[in-house]
Amino acid sequence: MELTLTNLEEQAARVKKAQVFLSQAGIFQRNKALLAIADKLEANIDFILAANAEDLASSTKSNMQDRLRLTEEGIKGIAEATRQVAELPDPIGEIVKGWQRPNGLIITQKRVPIGTIGIIYEARPNVTIDAAILCLKSGNSVLLRGGSDAIHSNLALCAIMQVAIESVGLPKYSVDVVIDTSRETEIEMMQLNDYIDLLIPRGGASLIKSVVQNATIPVIETGSGVCHVYVDASADLDMAFNILLNAKCQRPSVCNSCETLVVHKSVAEEFLPRLLDQGIELRGDEGTQAIIHCIPATEEDFLTEYNDLILNIKLVDDLDEAIVHINHFGTHHSEAIITADYANSQKFLAQVDSAAVYVNASTRFTDGFEFGFGAEIGISTQKLHARGPMGLEALTTTKYQILGSGQIRH
Amino acid sequence: MELTLTNLEEQAARVKKAQVFLSQAGIFQRNKALLAIADKLEANIDFILAANAEDLASSTKSNMQDRLRLTEEGIKGIAEATRQVAELPDPIGEIVKGWQRPNGLIITQKRVPIGTIGIIYEARPNVTIDAAILCLKSGNSVLLRGGSDAIHSNLALCAIMQVAIESVGLPKYSVDVVIDTSRETEIEMMQLNDYIDLLIPRGGASLIKSVVQNATIPVIETGSGVCHVYVDASADLDMAFNILLNAKCQRPSVCNSCETLVVHKSVAEEFLPRLLDQGIELRGDEGTQAIIHCIPATEEDFLTEYNDLILNIKLVDDLDEAIVHINHFGTHHSEAIITADYANSQKFLAQVDSAAVYVNASTRFTDGFEFGFGAEIGISTQKLHARGPMGLEALTTTKYQILGSGQIRH
Repeated sequence: MELTLTNLEEQAARVKKAQVFLSQAGIFQRNKALLAIADKLEANIDFILAANAEDLASSTKSNMQDRLRLTEEGIKGIAEATRQVAELPDPIGEIVKGWQRPNGLIITQKRVPIGTIGIIYEARPNVTIDAAILCLKSGNSVLLRGGSDAIHSNLALCAIMQVAIESVGLPKYSVDVVIDTSRETEIEMMQLNDYIDLLIPRGGASLIKSVVQNATIPVIETGSGVCHVYVDASADLDMAFNILLNAKCQRPSVCNSCETLVVHKSVAEEFLPRLLDQGIELRGDEGTQAIIHCIPATEEDFLTEYNDLILNIKLVDDLDEAIVHINHFGTHHSEAIITADYANSQKFLAQVDSAAVYVNASTRFTDGFEFGFGAEIGISTQKLHARGPMGLEALTTTKYQILGSGQIRH
Repeated sequence: MELTLTNLEEQAARVKKAQVFLSQAGIFQRNKALLAIADKLEANIDFILAANAEDLASSTKSNMQDRLRLTEEGIKGIAEATRQVAELPDPIGEIVKGWQRPNGLIITQKRVPIGTIGIIYEARPNVTIDAAILCLKSGNSVLLRGGSDAIHSNLALCAIMQVAIESVGLPKYSVDVVIDTSRETEIEMMQLNDYIDLLIPRGGASLIKSVVQNATIPVIETGSGVCHVYVDASADLDMAFNILLNAKCQRPSVCNSCETLVVHKSVAEEFLPRLLDQGIELRGDEGTQAIIHCIPATEEDFLTEYNDLILNIKLVDDLDEAIVHINHFGTHHSEAIITADYANSQKFLAQVDSAAVYVNASTRFTDGFEFGFGAEIGISTQKLHARGPMGLEALTTTKYQILGSGQIRH
């Protein structure tokens, strides 16, 4: 494949221009593009794996190989997921609200694509397809900037998508991959307000922080999760144990897994010993240390997203102390109370300031698929535009359409 | 009044802390606070006018006096507007959506306050009350940073609001005014991500640009308006003339007034002469210059928000050219087509990429009150979170509350 170095602004302008046409395409055509992408991915597995092999060969970091590697199985899975997105309802066109004013004006608020979306992510080529199809489905064009270690894979995937998109009569540059993956170009992309309407960073805390610090384009912050399970005095301790184990251990590397257990002191002596010998490294506060053998937890620990089999433990005198701790040390992602007490369940739901607040269930359910959205762009931990798991609707905005018959303002 | 210099971060922390309590207050208590503020404003008119006189005396810029000046009449009007906001429905607590999952989890999405809002604005003391009451009504605490020329007025108004808020049992620092109005502190405020959830700049283009460039906190961009009226070949030219005159002249200083007239060339010779002798400075493209006497319009003119009795005129061959011009030169605020043609009306509504798109009505209706919202925070020209006139709902976010009975993820 020939690598032509293209100026970022030119690339962005092409993608923006494509969106004008794409935004007017109906759902049948957008779905046809997705199905064509799925077919072309399966028909070009060897081409993709060859490009991926180049990336794997030149990647120097051994811990990067796992993220980078594509397989025949994996590509078939991506194609299948693409077909499933094609089956989802159209997020565009809904009349969200509508009303008539006393002067006769008819105002409707209609759901429309956002426009051009920029995705900044790490060296994970699967994100290239995943993000692109969700943008296409919702009528948005997309400029993808993945980690430099995956550039050959990303360009191969992009070429396949562009051929598929053109084959159904939509503009080729509805999707494009940033060719110049230098740090300077990354920062430049975060400030292309004339071309990009929304930036979504997908990746670790340092990537997200860099985007928040440098972007002048609106950003949706995703992913960072210091999640809590609080075991109330009235909790069914068997239920609490099952939920905690699920929240901590079922998939510790993801953002909705639990990092800190908060326990009411009245049940701590009975509950905490159950956590021993579960393969979890325990870091407890002073009260915890008096009950079970554990590593002393520091303030820094309580702020840390381990993404690993490590659990902080904090004892509290009452629910109020638990809520204060969670709101202070958490990332406002997902928190659960395990309780049999009605009033405490309601207080926790009302006062914990997080995107998802659970009673008697695992924090692991904070997920677009588990919520029934059929897709997930990410999990927003900010309060603007979208909060919590984001389905296709998060990639839409609205416009007001107003029908008059000559009205002027007095 | 004593001016104690307080560190900005300390101020922000107090306001954030107040919100924890405020967010749990019911609508009766929040409305009581608004009514108490209205009463206290009317009871302290002399105190307010004295503080305002200090600002007027020390303000060196003569064009600032108008914005700065408060009057007895004006304060009574603000009090009355505050009482009207108290009568609006509660924007908080609505269950936006709710459903049950196959595993029995009940998921509800509930409308809640955003948290702490920062308002950055110019030396307009009326904004101090206006912004504060909308934030209070919606359960948000607010940190107000007004122009330094209005500091005495703002502190007096803030003191009155704080006394009123405390008198109904809500936290004093639900509202606060930034005391240090230096430029450095302004930038610092835009980056207080740990304390402020949302920044809303209210003011001219340079203020808004500075906030967009410097803020790391999410921002809602408001206000900038290069709005268009397009007169189609099929337009009723009397209607077109009335609407254009209204959009341009009824209140030229505001963002939803018209800056550029786009005219189909087939009606230009009949329509354009009507614009002469209306007290409007006309700046036309070449086609326009061939028909009426006018100043030649530059590309820069077509990008300019005049906020004055100046009108650009652009002739086009067809609707497509009009749409391309509007989407390129406009600020995506408000645009109108005047037409008798059904297909053209639908095309304009679909393809013009603006917050509010009109058929046969004046762009001046883009306004929270004219839309029937009963209040207006501003008019968003960005696509994230809120687009177009923002009522109280724009000051809310949602949280997911999930009720389980021991569910874990498999």
